[in-house]
Amino acid sequence: MKRRDFFTNSAAGLLLGPITFSGKPENIHPVKTRDSAKNIIFMVSDGMSTGTLNMADLLLTRKEGRESAWMKLYSEKTGRRAFMETSSSSALVTDSAAGSSAWGGGKKVPNGNLNVNADGSFNKPILQKYKEAGKSVGCVTSVTITHATPAGFCINNKSRGDESEIADQYLDLKFDVMMGGGSEFFSPETRKDKKDLFAAYTSAGYNLARNRDDLLALNSARKPVLGVFCEGALPYSLDTFEDKTLQSSVPTLAEMTGKTLELLSKNPKGFVVQIEGGKVDWAAHSNDAGGLLYDQIAFDEAVQVALDFAAKDKETLVIITTDHGNANPGLFGSDKNFDMLQKFRHTNNWIMGGLKEMLSPAQLIERIEFAQGYAIRTEEAEKLLKLFGLKNEKGLYITNKPLFKEFGSIQTKYTGIGWAGMDHSSDYVELAMFGPGSEKLDPFVKNTDLHNFMLDATGVARV
Amino acid sequence: MKRRDFFTNSAAGLLLGPITFSGKPENIHPVKTRDSAKNIIFMVSDGMSTGTLNMADLLLTRKEGRESAWMKLYSEKTGRRAFMETSSSSALVTDSAAGSSAWGGGKKVPNGNLNVNADGSFNKPILQKYKEAGKSVGCVTSVTITHATPAGFCINNKSRGDESEIADQYLDLKFDVMMGGGSEFFSPETRKDKKDLFAAYTSAGYNLARNRDDLLALNSARKPVLGVFCEGALPYSLDTFEDKTLQSSVPTLAEMTGKTLELLSKNPKGFVVQIEGGKVDWAAHSNDAGGLLYDQIAFDEAVQVALDFAAKDKETLVIITTDHGNANPGLFGSDKNFDMLQKFRHTNNWIMGGLKEMLSPAQLIERIEFAQGYAIRTEEAEKLLKLFGLKNEKGLYITNKPLFKEFGSIQTKYTGIGWAGMDHSSDYVELAMFGPGSEKLDPFVKNTDLHNFMLDATGVARV
Repeated sequence: MKRRDFFTNSAAGLLLGPITFSGKPENIHPVKTRDSAKNIIFMVSDGMSTGTLNMADLLLTRKEGRESAWMKLYSEKTGRRAFMETSSSSALVTDSAAGSSAWGGGKKVPNGNLNVNADGSFNKPILQKYKEAGKSVGCVTSVTITHATPAGFCINNKSRGDESEIADQYLDLKFDVMMGGGSEFFSPETRKDKKDLFAAYTSAGYNLARNRDDLLALNSARKPVLGVFCEGALPYSLDTFEDKTLQSSVPTLAEMTGKTLELLSKNPKGFVVQIEGGKVDWAAHSNDAGGLLYDQIAFDEAVQVALDFAAKDKETLVIITTDHGNANPGLFGSDKNFDMLQKFRHTNNWIMGGLKEMLSPAQLIERIEFAQGYAIRTEEAEKLLKLFGLKNEKGLYITNKPLFKEFGSIQTKYTGIGWAGMDHSSDYVELAMFGPGSEKLDPFVKNTDLHNFMLDATGVARV
Repeated sequence: MKRRDFFTNSAAGLLLGPITFSGKPENIHPVKTRDSAKNIIFMVSDGMSTGTLNMADLLLTRKEGRESAWMKLYSEKTGRRAFMETSSSSALVTDSAAGSSAWGGGKKVPNGNLNVNADGSFNKPILQKYKEAGKSVGCVTSVTITHATPAGFCINNKSRGDESEIADQYLDLKFDVMMGGGSEFFSPETRKDKKDLFAAYTSAGYNLARNRDDLLALNSARKPVLGVFCEGALPYSLDTFEDKTLQSSVPTLAEMTGKTLELLSKNPKGFVVQIEGGKVDWAAHSNDAGGLLYDQIAFDEAVQVALDFAAKDKETLVIITTDHGNANPGLFGSDKNFDMLQKFRHTNNWIMGGLKEMLSPAQLIERIEFAQGYAIRTEEAEKLLKLFGLKNEKGLYITNKPLFKEFGSIQTKYTGIGWAGMDHSSDYVELAMFGPGSEKLDPFVKNTDLHNFMLDATGVARV
């Protein structure tokens, strides 16, 4: 796709004469506290289609009488917004590796690659640039810390797939805070090479946090922090609501964000951090409405923590966006349908993922009613049970796509929420900014534009 | 849903202290040619989800090497944009009658109503206000001119359904230009009451245009114009590309727009007009990718006509938006899949709607391959043929929803375009503005806000 260079003013195009009412972006937000931002909080709700943002906001409004922090940024006119295109170098529909690399390395790379071009050459990841500039840096995520979206800000690797290798690469970087799931990539019991990376991080001077208490106990001594709270991704937010064990072992994204900002902000030269709500994407891949909307809300609570910090600090640019759409969900049903979501106690992934043995139709109906408050019909339960044990179509996160597709489709009749697919989409996506530097945001940007945008906003040289 | 009044500055909310880098909207576009707009062109791509805008832009870029006029407004930084919520008074998911009434009457009304509140009281339609203020007014659409979206700017009626009655109501208003399809609501042969409304409009001093030549021959003498170019809605743009008869009988939306602006702009007191791409919605209701994207492009060509007019005129506010999402389509497949769209010769509606008798599977495969360039499998054709003759689920525009749903789903494998439903969604939608007055646009608005926004932008009293 060929687009104009958005940073030149050469565009003549549509204008037939001098249009004086069209303001240059330089005219916007003319009063600033300083010329550049000291800190950046880059927040990613991974795989968030427009409808995800919309329905999470509606759910919060109807359930708790408050709008989302993201939408409040708009309704209170404190934030700026843009559309962002999301293509990779190999396709209109990006994956998360190429998506994060576009921001992290400033260049479109083929899907699957982490800051590695088609010719094998490397693009330097932005957190390495910021580390060299003296800032503290880090990544926080609700999936594995070695996953594509954090990795795209940190490393070069021609394949996102080898998360054990990525865990090794992180050790060399000695970044200040890395937090999420994925203990299997650090532990000698689960790594193929039997290396004990936890021990290696400790030897290298890291503070380790392995559960919520560890996290909350971290003090502000300037030691790097590795937080790995579970095997695989963190649980879906919805599934923690009634589970005291999960609540005490695994922190929320907002808690991780709060602690990370507390730690990183001790550096007088500033910090740059990526915060990812990674399971929004996983929920979309499995057409799991409860997983999706409550994890979007959990992301939004982290957004609120970031915005509160930035509003007080006044030197922090907050960027809030997503790497691509996923499944393009929407509310197509009645308000009554939609209000079913308020009663959900568990995700579709909990209902199906927790099953070790075949149930009877009546047992499955009971399990779904317990978890989500509606009773499916016997023939629907039978249809689902027939799909048990089918192989996964694509192999990405979801072990049985036909089962989750059918369940999502049955669920549509009860919740009114429909799904256009189980994968990423090419949609232009929502991008919001708050704080110093945001006044430079154009109405439409390429994902790659954000790389130099961040460097320029913080006054760090483009190298 | 309770939201703040966006036109007050009382919001404190998230801000913990004075944030001086957050510009007030008053600081944007500070230089204007005049204090208010003389004219408004209000453009509606009915039922346009985010993915529709995205895919039409990608299709244009890949097929013709040019971006859409709508997106160019952003990439060239000449337009402003906002998110708009779209709910009605009765539901999160609006219909087009309540959607247009929100803009047209400034109040949310129940779905199905045209500027009639739940208690039966009326809200005065905006074009009546502008007519009284001395401006020329009108509506142009690619569906029936008596359809909900134009009607919501013109009249009060407790039901959108009786389009014959709406055609009667229009006569009393004597608006300056009304153009679209729907001859069955004006002709004595097809009206239940046998009234000859065409004769009545002529007696009332109207110029009639019944085909493209009539339209192009209209001169600027200040007589009101009724253009009714066919029975029902105008054909899908894609279906006219290889049909000389349709091309000569039915004008494009861009042609109607150009002529309308030529006629209306003769009034020294200015004009206000609504231009609707109405079949974008119909295509989404039938999951018809070719119908959807080529009608979105046809709408975009009308947008270009409006923007060219406004750029030259400098006194015209152009508002470009949609009333609600529909079907939330997205590109989930490969670039190669998507490029199939470039070879399309006909819509799904043409393929299925043109069938009067049962085909063999081989004949159906041949028909689809002729129309869209790919051969479906025999079992897919058999599946479709089984659905022939099934009754419509909902009765809105599409006569056989199960058939179109199945066809859309089969087509997904070839085009990569998926659909989340066959109805309207609650998504927040895209809103763009260009020209004087646009500097007042907030980042997030309610659909009802646009009513007073227009009155204020043109300096016409809120009554």
